[in-house]
Formats: sequence, structure tokens, C-alpha cells
Amino acid sequence: MSLLDSINYPQDIKNLKLNELYQLADEIRNFLISSVSKTGGHLAPNLGVVELTIALHRVFNMPDDKIVWDVGHQSYVHKILTGRKDRFDTLRKYGGLSGFPRPSESEYDSFSTGHSSTSISAALGFAKARDIKGDKNDVVAVIGDGALTGGMAFEALNHAGNSNTNVIVILNDNEMSISQNVGSVSSYLAKIRTQPTYMNIRDDLEYMVKKIPAVGNNLYKAAERVKESVKCLVVKGMLFEELGFTYLGPIDGHDIKEVSSVLTRAKKIRGPVLIHVITKKGKGYYFAEKKPDKFHGIGPFTIETGESTKSKASYSSVFGEEIIDAAEKNEKLVAITAAMPDGTGLSDFAKRFPKRFFDVGIAEQHAVSLSAGMASSGLKPVFAVYSTFLQRAYDQVLHDVAIQNLPVMFCIDRSGIVGEDGETHQGVFDISYLRTIPNMVIMSPKSIIEFRKMLKWGFMYNDSPLAIRYPRGCDGNLSFNEEDSIELGKWEEVKKGKDIAIIAVGKMVQHSLEASKELESKGINSTVINAKFIKPLDKNMLEYIYKCHDIVFTVEDNMIGGGFGESVLEYITSINSYKKTVLIGYHDEFIHHGSVDKLYEEYGLDSKGITSTILKNIKGDYHGRG
Amino acid sequence: MSLLDSINYPQDIKNLKLNELYQLADEIRNFLISSVSKTGGHLAPNLGVVELTIALHRVFNMPDDKIVWDVGHQSYVHKILTGRKDRFDTLRKYGGLSGFPRPSESEYDSFSTGHSSTSISAALGFAKARDIKGDKNDVVAVIGDGALTGGMAFEALNHAGNSNTNVIVILNDNEMSISQNVGSVSSYLAKIRTQPTYMNIRDDLEYMVKKIPAVGNNLYKAAERVKESVKCLVVKGMLFEELGFTYLGPIDGHDIKEVSSVLTRAKKIRGPVLIHVITKKGKGYYFAEKKPDKFHGIGPFTIETGESTKSKASYSSVFGEEIIDAAEKNEKLVAITAAMPDGTGLSDFAKRFPKRFFDVGIAEQHAVSLSAGMASSGLKPVFAVYSTFLQRAYDQVLHDVAIQNLPVMFCIDRSGIVGEDGETHQGVFDISYLRTIPNMVIMSPKSIIEFRKMLKWGFMYNDSPLAIRYPRGCDGNLSFNEEDSIELGKWEEVKKGKDIAIIAVGKMVQHSLEASKELESKGINSTVINAKFIKPLDKNMLEYIYKCHDIVFTVEDNMIGGGFGESVLEYITSINSYKKTVLIGYHDEFIHHGSVDKLYEEYGLDSKGITSTILKNIKGDYHGRG
Repeated sequence: MSLLDSINYPQDIKNLKLNELYQLADEIRNFLISSVSKTGGHLAPNLGVVELTIALHRVFNMPDDKIVWDVGHQSYVHKILTGRKDRFDTLRKYGGLSGFPRPSESEYDSFSTGHSSTSISAALGFAKARDIKGDKNDVVAVIGDGALTGGMAFEALNHAGNSNTNVIVILNDNEMSISQNVGSVSSYLAKIRTQPTYMNIRDDLEYMVKKIPAVGNNLYKAAERVKESVKCLVVKGMLFEELGFTYLGPIDGHDIKEVSSVLTRAKKIRGPVLIHVITKKGKGYYFAEKKPDKFHGIGPFTIETGESTKSKASYSSVFGEEIIDAAEKNEKLVAITAAMPDGTGLSDFAKRFPKRFFDVGIAEQHAVSLSAGMASSGLKPVFAVYSTFLQRAYDQVLHDVAIQNLPVMFCIDRSGIVGEDGETHQGVFDISYLRTIPNMVIMSPKSIIEFRKMLKWGFMYNDSPLAIRYPRGCDGNLSFNEEDSIELGKWEEVKKGKDIAIIAVGKMVQHSLEASKELESKGINSTVINAKFIKPLDKNMLEYIYKCHDIVFTVEDNMIGGGFGESVLEYITSINSYKKTVLIGYHDEFIHHGSVDKLYEEYGLDSKGITSTILKNIKGDYHGRG
Repeated sequence: MSLLDSINYPQDIKNLKLNELYQLADEIRNFLISSVSKTGGHLAPNLGVVELTIALHRVFNMPDDKIVWDVGHQSYVHKILTGRKDRFDTLRKYGGLSGFPRPSESEYDSFSTGHSSTSISAALGFAKARDIKGDKNDVVAVIGDGALTGGMAFEALNHAGNSNTNVIVILNDNEMSISQNVGSVSSYLAKIRTQPTYMNIRDDLEYMVKKIPAVGNNLYKAAERVKESVKCLVVKGMLFEELGFTYLGPIDGHDIKEVSSVLTRAKKIRGPVLIHVITKKGKGYYFAEKKPDKFHGIGPFTIETGESTKSKASYSSVFGEEIIDAAEKNEKLVAITAAMPDGTGLSDFAKRFPKRFFDVGIAEQHAVSLSAGMASSGLKPVFAVYSTFLQRAYDQVLHDVAIQNLPVMFCIDRSGIVGEDGETHQGVFDISYLRTIPNMVIMSPKSIIEFRKMLKWGFMYNDSPLAIRYPRGCDGNLSFNEEDSIELGKWEEVKKGKDIAIIAVGKMVQHSLEASKELESKGINSTVINAKFIKPLDKNMLEYIYKCHDIVFTVEDNMIGGGFGESVLEYITSINSYKKTVLIGYHDEFIHHGSVDKLYEEYGLDSKGITSTILKNIKGDYHGRG
């Protein structure tokens, strides 16, 4: 029987000896590797925080003490130690454990996370609330060096540093965000890691002052002045000390004893404390240590080889190919990413055009306004970003790009349901938040072939901001006639019918065409429209659709609220052409985790669900026809 | 004839002597005070940058060199010196000069600004574009110490600091944002201003090393070590140096000679440079120096007394009263602002409940997630914020508050048209971006009396996130029967009619009731509904409205895209109760500056415009009836 078998809750580790804790760490690593090799998940970040998490649960008393995991994908070990080990095979599956902290899942998860750089703000909120309520618990935020580049982390440091509030920030420094870190804070952290600490200088100064005879000696006076100034400047000289934090570190995050002892010390310090912990991402699993970016988030893999199943050409990789092709022809084209060169497919571009590639770190706001500045100077900036993360830069899209009508191109990957990452990551809001911004043009391709055409068209388009939203992964099985070309605001009739019309966006064209075929077999003859442009609408096509069909369905992989369907309704209403219209999309709720296909099924956006909604709405009207 | 009379463009000041430049500065100050006393505007920030702006135009060659004014309300002097002096009496008026830099207004305005903290990102974009294009121009961002607390400024510093790009950031340190500054960066800047520079320490060290005999002496070795370490730590010890900038300063921003000389030096330095300039907000006008917050942005005033015309009770001041009342009864209520204690009406609360008041600086993202943390701990956080600035925290509202369904209350001031500040500040998007977020409840009051009721109701409401949007300024002249109470999702029939129904939101209820009375005189009998809850909709009331009226009009002080009207359409469509519906609001364009009333008139949202839209849409139907 392993030690881990007997560990279920934090109290189970409180009395373990140090050698047992290290044994536990080993067992947790093996458990993680074995478990995640089957379920997929964020392996490398969790392998990096095994000892840190053990030490946290050893020193603090959860759930009375609060811990906020920034981003949250490194909370697996925490989940294992807080009563959820036995359900770990359900990780990221529909109805199973979330891959992120969720208060709805456990009282040990004090705050839901998913996007980067929120933890210090939330932790400060917990700490301020504790003080107001007169409670005594500790509050800890664990934030990676990658997440520290997000501006809101700095906003929180700026507030916390001046707040005189007891809050502990653990900087988990693994020299990586998802890929290699960038920016001057990252260089600064590297400097701390390699440099003798200021303690040595103080020792030298003490020695000097003692050695030099005191009275009436200029040398002594100079030494005294230096000692005072250095105390003032150097002791406070660290970036974090200057921001008002007591800085402890750097320490080895895999040394349970050292981490525990520093955590215990931090508990006693009044005011905000920052503990700088050095960890190794992927620690203890050869392949993850070697390729921490690959093993950051990964599907199921073979433990012995580290190989995961290869997937077909994805939208991301096609984007990566097309942008290189375009950049060869247009020297003004530049690419911007916020810490996602691999995920967005820009890695090859980065190698090919290093001077025209900008990885700004986890900093979507800056990425957008940087792009705006570049576009103001005549460049063609292409910001590749996941739908859910562009939410962070909503104001910059509106205020810095759209008001000035600048030709920044947004390549919005992972639009629609993304699946296993759950409610914090679903890309189901972008149509709603982008469509209502004046000057925006928004497209979405029905297939990868069309995606290539849209990209080529978009790279040449300079009249306004442009967004192309495309899904995670690859195409479905259906193939299309792909002769149609791209023309601003023009839709495509994918299938000509008569009774009803289905207007679908992006990937939903595939599902709708399948549904249409199924409906055919029930005697219902339907038109299917590929609404390539979400904005502007194809008004001529819309008028034809409403003129020639009895009922219209819109289908989008987005919230109905503020979505594409509502814009169709608005237009049709404005020209007095209303007919019965049914909007298919997500109703006013957050979409939990599960596989993409499972979620389409659950929310009625697979072909079966679309068919069923259509049948329900046309009631007896067309049954038995044909 | 004054010197200013002969100055129209930057070249006109290039050859002026120093004493003439100071004379010019005086004249510009008088011009500003006289002009803004009539038009209103951002007086104090501009009085603070007179000499700095003169020095910038003396040293750099605009428009080839680019300058990005952060926030942009301090660009008046720049406008005076770049061909717009003679139109200054049109400042902030409809069709007149904008109060912010607008590339559409002048080639000297390289980038449009309005919201805080964007300038370093945009400037870096200009600089990178210059390098890619092989141009040689300089790029300068001017950012206040207040704006520096915004996270995206830090994201940009982090990128620029490590970029080896020639870009000059001028930190205009006046120890203020709009009100007193907060946070640890602010404390840090204060420390720099008052502390001997590290240069003194280096001198002392040099002296020591020279004095101590070299060979085989431990003391000498220690001193050498200290010298090296201090060089390494202290020279790089400044916050900005640690972020990769060459730091110059602090210098007196009112000393044209010194500023010019440092700017000239900065032009020659390779890589990013930060110049720390100390200025006095309101400089040169007694009342503005004394009350820089009052004179930050001000309406017309009397120069001799500094008095502006008193206005009636505003929504902001009523909010300020009600939240104090509520806080006295509920000790868990806390208030949060992002550098707007005065503007939002929280100044008295701050004095009364200092421990329950949090001014986080210009940091909306942090403000929201801090609130989320507090709500997670059982507090009742109320974040008072302008509609346009909440855009900055869209992701935090969605990801940190709404997903967890936390009872954070958003008091959204300056919703709808705000007037003179123009397109960067209009609050015409909040319904669109908030309505589509699950779990949100959104209200808007028709009058100040109802606003009080809504606040009282909201302070007690804990079931979900809640937003109350209310307009800038005070009520119109119409008074209402105010007997109706607040009930979740319940609307109010303000006027019972039959032919048509007008469903209006917030202040638009007033305009709609006036329109209804006008229509009455033309024989059209209309129902007027006060849609107190923008979300959830009052479905029963909606069904009644659509059953009993021939045409329905929705009226909102928001974009039609994604707005309230579309949500009405969506619901009515979903229950198959559609009738002709006309959505009144802003069409897909940004709304420029001008007075609120003028803009309502221009965009058809005053009672006259609403009447006219209604008449147009009912055509002959009801004419001559009644």
C-alpha cells in the first residue's frame, strides 16, 4: 500500500515526517503522470508545484486559510490533497472534476480562476474582508512569473504593497509562462536568481565600518553614509520591496523543508509578503522537463515515450502557414501574440520573421494597443489570440482600434465551445462583444479551405478593424463545394431549399448542413446559408431569405444574447420583413467543461440538436410533406 | 500685440529665446484660463504642462516625430501650438475642437486617446513600426503618475524595457491622478523626489576606495566588493531601471531650459528612456493650484473667484448619500473606486468609513476582482465607476464576478451620452456588454427618486451580480408618480394607452413620456413603460404589451447593437408574439462630442426625435384618429 492511499485531506499530511513527505511527493508525481496520461490536462505546471503544494497544506489550515491559485491549472496537487483524489479519472470530463479551482466543487477552492493574473486582486479582497470582519486567517495567492506580466497583477501589487494588509504572494518562478517568458520583469527575475544577495553587501559594509577608526575620520564618515544609503536604497532596492512588499527568496520550491520554513516565517510578518520560489516546470517526468511547453496542456499520451496522438491539420496550424505566406509578400505585415506563439500557430512565423514577431507576454491589453500604434504607422498588425482571452482587451479593441478605424486584424482562435477547460475558457462571447463595436468587420469560416481564403482576403483588407473567429481543432467530416470567393458582406447559399432557411455561422454551417440532410429525409426542404460575414450582414441575401421561406433559423456557436441571431432579428425588424425566426445558440448560462462534442450534444448544437429544435418549431407544418 | 498672436505652429517657437519662451508660457496660461473659463474643460492638467509642451515642440519635430498624450486631456497646449489656437472657443462643442487628441482633427495628433494608460503601448507600436520601415523619427509618450497605476501601462513598460527600441516615456509626475494618488508606485515616486540620488553614494565609494591602501588589505577588498555590488544593485536599483529603462530625473517640469536639455539628451540615448518630470497641476492659477481636483475637469467658471455655477442634486451625489445611509445599517458594505472618489460621489463615504473605502487608483480590472474576492468572503462590495471605464474590466466582470455569481454591485455612473468628452467617453455600450453576461441583473432608474429606491433595493440584494446604470447630471423637468416599488424583473406602466407602446430605459422614460404627450396632441394614444430592469425582462408585461398594442417602440440611451431593444425582440420572437417593433437608440457609429442635449437632438433621442421616429413609423395608421 502506498502512502498516498492513506492521504485524503490536508490533516493527513500534518504529522508526516520529512522523508515521508518526499515519498508522498514522488507518489503524487507518479499519480499525476499516470492519471493525466489518460485524461489529458495541464501536466507540467502541476509537476512543478508538488512540493510547494504539500508545504502549503502543511503550514496553512485550509479551508479557513484561503489560497487563490492564479490561472488555476496548477491546482491538481491541491485537489488530490483535498478530498478529490478518487475522482481524478473524471478530470475535465463532462460532469467530472474541473481542471481549475471551482468553489462549487469544493470548499477548499476559495476562488474560481482560469484567466491569468487575477489572484493577487482576489487574495487582497479576501484579506481586506478578513480585516473588516475581524477574522484571523491567512490568505495566499500563488502566481507564476508568466502571469505576473499581466497588467492587473501589477495593479494589485501596487494596491497591496501600500495597504499594510497581511497577504502572502507566492511567486512561482519557473522561467516560463506557457512558452518562454518575455519582458523586463522576466529578465529581472533571472538577475535575482543568479546574483549574490544584498545580504553579502551589508556584511561587507558592517565589516568596513567596524574596521575604520571612528572619530573625525572622513573615511569613516563616508563609510557610514554609504551604509545608510545602501540600507535605504539596496534593502529597498528590489522591485518588490519598492512596491511595498517584504521580499523573501529566492528559495528552492522543491525543498519542502525550506519552503515550509519560509512560509511559517511569512505568516508572522506584518503587511504584504512576496515569496520568490524557484520551481522546475514538468519536474520529475523526463519528457515534461525537456518540453515543458508541449506538456503545459496536453491530451492523453503514452508515458514511456511522451508521445501524444497526432491530430489533423488544425485551424491554428493553417493560420500559421497562411500568415507566413502573406508575410513573404507583404513586408508590412507583423504578428503579435500574448504568450501563445505555439497555441496560435505562430512558432514558425517567429523563426522566419523574428523582427516582425512580437510576443508581449500575458498582456492582451498592451498587445491590442501596440497593434493600434503599429497600424497608425502603416503596418498591418495581426493579433492572434484565443477568443476568451481577447475579453481582457475589450476596451482596447473599442477605444484604441475601432474609434480610430485602424486596420488591425484579430485572428480569434478557440471561438465557440473549447471543451475541457470549461466555463472560464469557452469562446462563446466574442460575437456579442465585438459585433456591437462600430467599424468592426467580423468573419467566420465554415471550413479550413474557406479559412485559408478568408485569411488571404483579410491580410489584404485595410479599410477597418477585422476579426476572423475560428474554432479549436479541425474540420468535421463534411466537405463543401468551395468555389465561392470572399467578398465583403457577402454570404453563400450552401444548399438551396424552400420551406425553411437555416442561417449558420462558422463551424455551425457543417452541423446545419447535416441537419438539413436529416430534415430532407423527413420531407422538410431547407435552405442552408453560410453567413461568412457576421458583420456586416448580407442584407440582400437576408431579404431574399425572409421573402422565400416560412421560418428562419439562425445557428451560432455563441451566446444568443447579443449574438448573430439578434442582429438578424434587428435588421429584419428594421425593414418590416419579419417572419417567424428561431435563434439557436447558448442560452443565458455559462457552459461547463466536457468534450466539445459532448457539449454540442448537451446544448443542442450538434446536427441532431439542430434538427430537433427545427422539428419542434415547425410543429406539424411540414410533417408528412414532400 | 502679444507673443502668442504670432505663434501658430511649432516652427514659430523654434528660434525664440529663453525669456521669450517664458513669456509665451505666461501668455498661454492666460489664454487657457480665459478660454476654459468660458468653454469649460480640463484646466488644471493643462496648466501643469505648459512648459513641458513648449519644450517638446522646441526639441522635437512634429508631426514627423510622434507624441502620444496619455488620457489626452492635457493636450490643449499642444493644440494651441499646432494650428488650432483660433478655434479654441469651439473646444468640446458640437462640431468644434475635441478636448482630446484626434488624428481626424490634425496631423499633429498622432493617436486618439481618452482612457488612461494606453500611451506607452501605442508609442511602442509607433517605434517598432519606425524600425521596421527603416525610418528615423523619435517617439514620445507623455503619461501622468496617475495613469501609471493602470495595468496596461506596466504591460507596456515590461515589453518596452526589454525591447532595445528607442522610445521616450515622459512621466509627468504631479502627485495626482484626478484626485490624490494611491498605491506603492506613488509612494515610490515620492521617495525619489525627496531622496539624495545614488550619485552621492557612488562619490563616497570612489573616495573610500581611493583612500584605503590597496595591496593585501581586507578592508580594501571589502570596499571594492561593495563598490561593484552597489554599481550593480543601486545603479540598476531604480524601479524603472530594473524594468530596463534609462532613467533621467527627477527634473523640474516648469524649467524649459532643463527640460529641453534632458529631452535633447534622451534623443541620443539608445533604447527606452524614462524622463521623470515634476510638475504642478493647476500651475499659475491660484484656485486651480489650491484645488487641482476641482479644476481637473470643470464647467465654465468666473476667473476672479474660481466659482462655477452650482448644479442641482446629481445622480452621483444621490448615490453618495444613499451609500452612506446603507453603510450605517450594514457593516459588510464596502465601497470601491478607481481614482474617482469625487466624480462618483464617494468622497463623504471615504471620510465617514475610511476602513471600508478602497480607492485602488486607475485600475478598474483590479477593482472588480478585488470586489469579487471581498464578495467571496461575505462582504457587500459596491464598485462605483463610469460606464466607459468599466469597459476596461469587461473580462473581470464576466470571469471573476459573474461565473461565480458573486453579489458585487456595480454602480455605473455616466451611462448613456456624457457629452463634451466625446467618443472615447460616451457610456453607450454598457447595456450591450453587460446584458450578454449570464447571471447579471441590470437596472436603470427613470428619475432620481426612483434611483434612491433602486439603490436601497440593490444594497439589500445578494443573489447575483447587479448593475445600476444611471446618467450624468440630474433629472429633467418632468416629475412622475413615484409610488411604484422595486421588485426583481418588474416594469412599470407609466402611462396607459392603447395604439402603440413605448418601452423606455432610464432617462429615456422622461423623453418618451414627453413624446407620448406630444403624440397625444396628434391623436395618437400611447402606452409608456418604464423598463426598470434591463435584465431580466418583465416577460408578463412584455406579453401584455405585445398583445394590446399594434406597434412597439423601444428607447434606450445605448447602441442598438446588442442593446435592450434586441433583447426584447429576442424574447418576443422566442414566444411567437412578434409585432412590428422599432428600436430607438444609437446606430452603429461612435458618438462625437457636444453637449448632452445637442447630441440627443442630433441622434433623435430627445422627445422631439422620439416623436418624429414614431410618427414616421406609424405612417398614416393613426393620423387623424382620436
